[in-house]
Amino acid sequence: MRNNSLNVAFLSRFVSLTSMLQSKLFTKTSRQAPADEVSVNAKLLTQAGFIHKELSGVYSYLPLGLRVFRKIENIIREEMDAIGGQEITMTALQEKETWEPTNQWDDKQVDVWFKTKLKNDTQLGLAVTHEAPITKLMKSFIQSYRDLPKFVYQFQTKFRNEARAKSGIMRCREFEMKDLYSFCKNEQEHNEFYERSKVAYKNIFDRVGLGKLTYLTFASGGMFSKFSHEFQTVTEAGEDTIYVNKKHNIAINKEVFTEDVKKDLGLGDDYEEAKAVEVGNIFTLGTRFSEALGLAYQTESGDTKQVFMGSYGIGPGRVMGTVVEVYHDASGILWPMSIAPFQVHVLALGTDKAVADAAHKLYANLERAGIEVLFDDRDEMSGVKLKDADLLGLPYRAVLSSKTSSQIELKLRNEKETRLVSESELLNTVSVQKKLDTA
Amino acid sequence: MRNNSLNVAFLSRFVSLTSMLQSKLFTKTSRQAPADEVSVNAKLLTQAGFIHKELSGVYSYLPLGLRVFRKIENIIREEMDAIGGQEITMTALQEKETWEPTNQWDDKQVDVWFKTKLKNDTQLGLAVTHEAPITKLMKSFIQSYRDLPKFVYQFQTKFRNEARAKSGIMRCREFEMKDLYSFCKNEQEHNEFYERSKVAYKNIFDRVGLGKLTYLTFASGGMFSKFSHEFQTVTEAGEDTIYVNKKHNIAINKEVFTEDVKKDLGLGDDYEEAKAVEVGNIFTLGTRFSEALGLAYQTESGDTKQVFMGSYGIGPGRVMGTVVEVYHDASGILWPMSIAPFQVHVLALGTDKAVADAAHKLYANLERAGIEVLFDDRDEMSGVKLKDADLLGLPYRAVLSSKTSSQIELKLRNEKETRLVSESELLNTVSVQKKLDTA
Repeated sequence: MRNNSLNVAFLSRFVSLTSMLQSKLFTKTSRQAPADEVSVNAKLLTQAGFIHKELSGVYSYLPLGLRVFRKIENIIREEMDAIGGQEITMTALQEKETWEPTNQWDDKQVDVWFKTKLKNDTQLGLAVTHEAPITKLMKSFIQSYRDLPKFVYQFQTKFRNEARAKSGIMRCREFEMKDLYSFCKNEQEHNEFYERSKVAYKNIFDRVGLGKLTYLTFASGGMFSKFSHEFQTVTEAGEDTIYVNKKHNIAINKEVFTEDVKKDLGLGDDYEEAKAVEVGNIFTLGTRFSEALGLAYQTESGDTKQVFMGSYGIGPGRVMGTVVEVYHDASGILWPMSIAPFQVHVLALGTDKAVADAAHKLYANLERAGIEVLFDDRDEMSGVKLKDADLLGLPYRAVLSSKTSSQIELKLRNEKETRLVSESELLNTVSVQKKLDTA
Repeated sequence: MRNNSLNVAFLSRFVSLTSMLQSKLFTKTSRQAPADEVSVNAKLLTQAGFIHKELSGVYSYLPLGLRVFRKIENIIREEMDAIGGQEITMTALQEKETWEPTNQWDDKQVDVWFKTKLKNDTQLGLAVTHEAPITKLMKSFIQSYRDLPKFVYQFQTKFRNEARAKSGIMRCREFEMKDLYSFCKNEQEHNEFYERSKVAYKNIFDRVGLGKLTYLTFASGGMFSKFSHEFQTVTEAGEDTIYVNKKHNIAINKEVFTEDVKKDLGLGDDYEEAKAVEVGNIFTLGTRFSEALGLAYQTESGDTKQVFMGSYGIGPGRVMGTVVEVYHDASGILWPMSIAPFQVHVLALGTDKAVADAAHKLYANLERAGIEVLFDDRDEMSGVKLKDADLLGLPYRAVLSSKTSSQIELKLRNEKETRLVSESELLNTVSVQKKLDTA
């Protein structure tokens, strides 16, 4: 926890308090992956009952999936609060008038609009992003240099009319995005925040388990900056091509990978090509929106000046999909501890009543210790339970059977070996790991 | 807290941990209420900087408003979890095929659709409700009597193309709704859950402060039940007319207020007419959706039977708007403790540095005690601060000035009198009230 509470406007968080009996869960795993999905993330998440496809590129999140999603959201929220972000929620429905000044209403300019209309035939659009609406909103609250800087973010549903959608939850037609917007007096104040946002983003990717594979990547900028910056996670499932400089821990997007740029950055010539997913991006907007929509402030000396803006995006669903692409094997998902739906999966194998009783007791004790636990208390064959445990991918599997006697057979999802432990050893192991993971 | 954790599928909650300096908040109050609003809730919430109008019937929630909204959400979530609800989130974008079997796609049948389309001209609708999509979804998970009953809910954005929208956040074109759907083996199992849902709803309205004004109200039913039930809060701002029987603490909606129905209910003839807002409703769907969309299960004896369904709605935004309609005076809002954006408003009046220092210390101590506190540390005149405090409406106002010496002038928003207290008295008073309120 790195929250400086005096600067933190609004820290709210989901805390998943309880554990759960698998027999009560309404979702089930499927024997086979869905035939109509191409991407690994959609195949595994659907088969495991984490998500449900409504139509191509449009997914519902079911209880286990929503738990993962909320944990990712919460990590992002904490990091945004830590750099002074104030949380709001804006709306999907938007008026033409908001988008015309920046030339973004025409379908030829922005080609992923979903449009609709009111009963009186007034056209509306479903927001693909919120730079323009928030600039308009901030006009009510920014008048003077004393009102700046301000940092405002939301978790909100975006709609994008993608021609194709076959990357599962990594590229959707309807998806939640965390978008933060910064409002500064000038470029220097903006740059200071921009650097802080890089640290916050690095923290987020570290905390969700993608840190080592995710590179700060130079990408094309706009009118107000030579570059924007993407956070690209290396995986074969990626749609982007980047060039990674491992020594300096940065990358360059193919779109700007030129000799000029390489010389500019001056980090040598040691770049490796890789496929990657853009899991976040930060962008200097400058005064493009504030000029077009009239967001100005009075300086200390009484002049009028345009507000200098930036935008900072990250999609929790895309992060979740990328985690699955990176952390899976032939049997299922391997969730990092920090975002796993539960930390421990307790399995009671066989029909022995003493085993079932011991498992119920273990379940209750883990829960009491504040450990999130899913208990497979179903009336199923051992083989089915073990297979489902691999598919669901919780970090710790704790098996009780007549063979284990009073001990517990503990296995980490990402290791092959099992070992027999006592209940107190199990509690201790999980608690220590949990602390490390949420530090 | 009434959670039975063994039955609770998924308890997650927002906890607002921190307090805040008012000088950092990006929103400001306005001198006047907005001229383009008719309803009291939209006037006050906009003037106080809790919400922002995007277009008629479409509102963004700003930091203080979002805090209230999330607290209401969280109360609802806890009560839904307590009766065995499992949380998911479905999507706004929906296909025609989902709605045709129940005859709900045609604009003549459902007249509040927002429609849009994919690039290949496939028509889509923005879900006005989710009975049909969830029935389709549950076909993947319900096959046998062993899979029943199940209770599934979400907090999700609905879109309704209302012809007029002038009730502020009480009736919106885009709004979040908690909708729970129940899936039971038969009518008897359904009725048991239906009764439990009444208790959960009663708890919700009690906890948000509307309990005493909110009546379980008989309203028109459907094919499968003579009545549905609404929860109606009595206020002049209401669009509905109900007949209240105070002795039995129930009401009858005007639409079914007939001699026959009165005789049916057998509660005498003592009814008073009142204006009211429908803050929640529960409805027996029977097999309308399961028949049309093919959601059936195998009974214990091997027969095939349709699943018996119900739906249970409540809009956190409408609840919030209703609270403002009910709890306000000429100077502003009076938030109930349980959903106030912060519990205590600390005001430092005057320019005395010793007062400012004492206020900062009090702020830190309240925060440390786990009390949510907004501290007006702005460089503003006393009159402005006092006026804003009334407008924002936090339950406790704690004023420090050179007049109060080492004491604190404490005032409840809903009382006229102030009294001088010590810091420990203040801490004690607020903590006790907080405990009572969240018990």
